[in-house]
Amino acid sequence: MSGKEKVTIYDISKKLNVSAATVSRALNQNPKISVKTRELVAKTAAEMNYKQNRLAQALKSGRTNNIGVIVPYINRSFFSSVIRGIEEELRPHGYHVIICQSHEEVSNEVEQINTLLNTQIDCIFMSVSKTTQNSDHIKKVLEENTPLVFFDRKMEVPGVSSVVIDDFKAGFMVTEHLIKQGCTRIAHLSGESNLEIYKYRHEGYCAALEKYGLDYVPEYVIKANSKIESGIEAVTQLWDLELKPDAIFAAGDYVALGAIQELRDRNIKIPEEVCVAGFSNEPFTKYMELPITSIDQTPQLMGKIAAQVFLEQVKQNQTITIEKKVVLPPELFVRDSSDRGLK
Amino acid sequence: MSGKEKVTIYDISKKLNVSAATVSRALNQNPKISVKTRELVAKTAAEMNYKQNRLAQALKSGRTNNIGVIVPYINRSFFSSVIRGIEEELRPHGYHVIICQSHEEVSNEVEQINTLLNTQIDCIFMSVSKTTQNSDHIKKVLEENTPLVFFDRKMEVPGVSSVVIDDFKAGFMVTEHLIKQGCTRIAHLSGESNLEIYKYRHEGYCAALEKYGLDYVPEYVIKANSKIESGIEAVTQLWDLELKPDAIFAAGDYVALGAIQELRDRNIKIPEEVCVAGFSNEPFTKYMELPITSIDQTPQLMGKIAAQVFLEQVKQNQTITIEKKVVLPPELFVRDSSDRGLK
Repeated sequence: MSGKEKVTIYDISKKLNVSAATVSRALNQNPKISVKTRELVAKTAAEMNYKQNRLAQALKSGRTNNIGVIVPYINRSFFSSVIRGIEEELRPHGYHVIICQSHEEVSNEVEQINTLLNTQIDCIFMSVSKTTQNSDHIKKVLEENTPLVFFDRKMEVPGVSSVVIDDFKAGFMVTEHLIKQGCTRIAHLSGESNLEIYKYRHEGYCAALEKYGLDYVPEYVIKANSKIESGIEAVTQLWDLELKPDAIFAAGDYVALGAIQELRDRNIKIPEEVCVAGFSNEPFTKYMELPITSIDQTPQLMGKIAAQVFLEQVKQNQTITIEKKVVLPPELFVRDSSDRGLK
Repeated sequence: MSGKEKVTIYDISKKLNVSAATVSRALNQNPKISVKTRELVAKTAAEMNYKQNRLAQALKSGRTNNIGVIVPYINRSFFSSVIRGIEEELRPHGYHVIICQSHEEVSNEVEQINTLLNTQIDCIFMSVSKTTQNSDHIKKVLEENTPLVFFDRKMEVPGVSSVVIDDFKAGFMVTEHLIKQGCTRIAHLSGESNLEIYKYRHEGYCAALEKYGLDYVPEYVIKANSKIESGIEAVTQLWDLELKPDAIFAAGDYVALGAIQELRDRNIKIPEEVCVAGFSNEPFTKYMELPITSIDQTPQLMGKIAAQVFLEQVKQNQTITIEKKVVLPPELFVRDSSDRGLK
């Protein structure tokens, strides 16, 4: 392992007593530079072990063929699948994908945007963190004339395209399914309401209750934080109520998993006594002994479409600004955790 | 969304009819440049909406404070946890982490190394793909004087540090545990033997059989490819044998999960009839209704130590080359899939 300083065109220019621009042009075989000088520069560069740098070239052209993706966590199947979709769509066009994770911290997000802007990416794809409240760092991306595409978790920033699923419809579908299984006291384990996705899932839940004439019980709606532990805590809290729920719609699969673990510890039968549904269709929901009902957000498709939105922009005259909002339909996978065989 | 070309120092130098080096020096407040010129350059840069680029500065200093990580997949808990360890260790030192995934394809790995070298990272942390056979692209990293640290999956390249776990010992521990549960016909679902990790796990398995006087049965050793499906296939193949195994040691957790699914489909009792153990301690192994015995590779610690190896190099005189090989002890988590209560 070695960390010697890299030789730059500035070192070569110093040695030859010519300008860095001359060295750069010579290395790029610019005909404005004499053949003699070009040969001298090439020889000196070789002697000094200089490696021509695609990045330095990119500084001139303004293009690197690298694109950046910022996600809260790489280890959620939803996010890694969106990234896969972006990669599959962009690779044939010669783009390379660089990934950063915010760990749900807006301070990391700010740093990562700086990092990506400094590495001269051609576009940023991004799903905002739960702690992101203001959009100053996002506006900075636009000021640098770097295209930005939101997926799943977006903010309302003029000029920014986005690809999301219809979270309202998804929340409605899950709740309607639970009602059709005969459930009437449906709890909702929601997420941070500053994120649109959770707000809409909650609104879909409310709309389904209303459509089927069920009361909205505030005690049945609990804020959970995407982790197994908060599913456990939520059930603990709900089972302290006099009138306990007969269904749980969790806005995330890990929360649903925690709820199931706690229900099982209390010897409550699923789905006979309580139906449970999650959200995201994480792979584990399918391969549990008791597979968990969930909403599929078609993440790979979401990634592909986000990439297409960017490619469309690249094809355009570069001074035209396109803002495109794509909303994908959610898909409900009914599994044993909520399936009483009723349609 | 907008994709206007970026203004570069070359554009400013053209406008002012001075060299790019002069523009660069002026923007960096180099005292060799007259105050008058510095003010003119600053004014022109502002008029042209030029954003000074840390990357351009990095081209001169040879440092960007960005480091790159290449993993086969980001959605395996093992790899995302190593990355988390690297991030936690390096963030306080001002480093930003950029992630690329090879999808187990050496061709992607080659491209990603180029991408990272072109974005001028200060170090590459890497776990090689299953299809990586030769190390030319890895030698290229060293030729560019960029430090490289392998973790988990390494290649023997002189001058490259590595952090791994003792896979031989891990294979031995799992097999010994299964023997102590009373198993005598232990199948091993192995991985690609060109990867050292799988070779060593297999050797540990063999050593444990030998120590306890059990025969090595070639039909009990099956190559599997880290996926649920190959666990299913392996059990199908093993249960065609006259003398069926009474234990399965899978070199990966997803393979163990597939094996368990297939055993359950055949109404074979786990662990009474067959004990099963996996490898990696993926979170799902813990939260299954039948939790799966597995080896923990202390991935976060692995990431932290890999980062420390790099930081140690940075602190040194930069012409000194350090090669450090760190081997961490594995940890066995015995769970219901193999626990018959025997020690």
